Amino acid sequence: MIDAQGYAALDPTTPLAPFSFQRRALGERDVQIEILYCGVCHSDLHTARNEWNNTLYPSVPGHEIVGRVVAVGSAVSGFKVDDIAGVGCLVDSCRNCPSCGEGLEQYCENGFIGTYNGSAFGGSENTLGGYSDTIVVDEKYVLRISHTDNLAAVAPLLCAGITTYSPLRQWKVGPGQKVGVVGLGGLGHMAVKIANAMGAKVVLFTTSPDKKDDALRLGASEVVISKNRAEMASHANSFDFILNTVAAPHDLDAFVNLLKRDATMTLVGAPASPHPSPSVFGLIFKRRRIAGSLIGGIAETQEMLDFCAEHSIVADIEMIRMDEINQAYERMLKSDVKYRFVIDMATLKSA
Amino acid sequence: MIDAQGYAALDPTTPLAPFSFQRRALGERDVQIEILYCGVCHSDLHTARNEWNNTLYPSVPGHEIVGRVVAVGSAVSGFKVDDIAGVGCLVDSCRNCPSCGEGLEQYCENGFIGTYNGSAFGGSENTLGGYSDTIVVDEKYVLRISHTDNLAAVAPLLCAGITTYSPLRQWKVGPGQKVGVVGLGGLGHMAVKIANAMGAKVVLFTTSPDKKDDALRLGASEVVISKNRAEMASHANSFDFILNTVAAPHDLDAFVNLLKRDATMTLVGAPASPHPSPSVFGLIFKRRRIAGSLIGGIAETQEMLDFCAEHSIVADIEMIRMDEINQAYERMLKSDVKYRFVIDMATLKSA
Repeated sequence: MIDAQGYAALDPTTPLAPFSFQRRALGERDVQIEILYCGVCHSDLHTARNEWNNTLYPSVPGHEIVGRVVAVGSAVSGFKVDDIAGVGCLVDSCRNCPSCGEGLEQYCENGFIGTYNGSAFGGSENTLGGYSDTIVVDEKYVLRISHTDNLAAVAPLLCAGITTYSPLRQWKVGPGQKVGVVGLGGLGHMAVKIANAMGAKVVLFTTSPDKKDDALRLGASEVVISKNRAEMASHANSFDFILNTVAAPHDLDAFVNLLKRDATMTLVGAPASPHPSPSVFGLIFKRRRIAGSLIGGIAETQEMLDFCAEHSIVADIEMIRMDEINQAYERMLKSDVKYRFVIDMATLKSA
Repeated sequence: MIDAQGYAALDPTTPLAPFSFQRRALGERDVQIEILYCGVCHSDLHTARNEWNNTLYPSVPGHEIVGRVVAVGSAVSGFKVDDIAGVGCLVDSCRNCPSCGEGLEQYCENGFIGTYNGSAFGGSENTLGGYSDTIVVDEKYVLRISHTDNLAAVAPLLCAGITTYSPLRQWKVGPGQKVGVVGLGGLGHMAVKIANAMGAKVVLFTTSPDKKDDALRLGASEVVISKNRAEMASHANSFDFILNTVAAPHDLDAFVNLLKRDATMTLVGAPASPHPSPSVFGLIFKRRRIAGSLIGGIAETQEMLDFCAEHSIVADIEMIRMDEINQAYERMLKSDVKYRFVIDMATLKSA
């Protein structure tokens, strides 16, 4: 077994605090990573506070992990000591179902194993995530990082990056297309950068006029204040694709009506209470579609990392110390972050 | 001008009654049809009673028309006197927009012209439909009928047939697939026949156990009582496509959860009040889609008619006299019809 230090939630209401635990001994296909940086995803907070009613305690969140390989098992072929490596939202899956067979481990029919909180479909076996100094992962679920600097800002690609990249690829976003991104948060700001790099004309929808300059800087061609009816109406029936990153319940029809015939709006945010029911007429009269999408598989996550390295894409981040995590959660709840907190794991030792 | 006799609603509350009016004089591209049969669609009732708040009066409903060509304009090339011909839900469109260019006149960006009640997107110019003895239509919007008998039962193909055929084709239903049809009414019974003829294994969902034998006779391989949770659960994640024909508000999640990864449920019924809001988790965790679909274009309607003739598909109908239309509406409201009323227009003269 390998000694590890981290930060854990022990119950839904107590702040996260220092926590000692053990990682499994290195198996022959395992990679041990010294964690350098870990991004802070809203799912971390949902899980720490048991907001999805499925948290196993103690809970060590964190699934946007970048670190340095410090040991490899005897059968590992893709990584060697001192490589920079990443770990995202999942660390295992059944490897036998049709989805795993297609490299879509995020849709594993038997439930992938999350980097923290165990099986996606429930179960009693917990996993402990990236708010820690080290992690042991089967090399099949470890990513290569080809970015050469700014590694802290690479970490959020492992969740926010792939969650937006995957639907943009799935719905074939590219040059000549007009693509909408709803919401400019951790996911939205990655979606703007990636869709722009894919060659699409990107329109950012926000309720906050003060985000306009930022959105343009990040790669949007245009910013629409979604509360402005006239502005919205001027874009009716014009979008090839809309990626909706907003997890708060909101009126979906306002965006559905901006889609062209046969176009799709894909939701990647899961609201705690339902959106108002979308109008069936809005779907029927243009054969439009509403879809969902969940993170991405390992092969696509690697593709995304390589794409981002090639296009010099990283997240816009604010670095924090490990002992600042509880304040960071409070600020995240107020959307007071541009656009992702990343924990400098070197601060764990001194915390 | 051409004298015509029909049945019209003069306001939302008075029963339909005999009505004399005039059709336009035959233009050089027009076909004049003596109407033999007209199917009775639920939209007829919605329009007659102004339930969509857009009815232009007097309103002559009817858009499932089969008849005999009695005159053709000088430039008509596709029809001659004595041909059997059909007219469906639309009789014109802008002919210039991208959707018209692709033969998808039902999605005309400028609003197709309905066979009754004028423009799909509103406007003051009314059109009068198939509850009448004759109609004049541009040949571009007239369909060839190759069925040789049972023409009364062909009439419902013009709306109920194409409304189900179009999404089944669009989402590429075929052999080896498991396809769900929700609801066994006018649309649902056509969907079962057509999906079966396309080679799919068809599962019919209904809340009425007494519809089971009929569904099996029509071509379903299996009937699932959608209120039975255990029966529903046994089909989780197994459908390639679901066509939902139910216009009454209902729980969509119960069906979304039966879709495989990346599969679509398409809605063709538009409820007067919204469905309960579908769960975003159900979409996200399998990258599933909810879509809408509206009737079909002219080319696809012709394809559907030819397909149905080839596979000996017609609707299951109950023939009525023109003067029985008001009672038929009342019975339709109680779902007391198997599965479509068709008016024998010969009874108009004696009505």
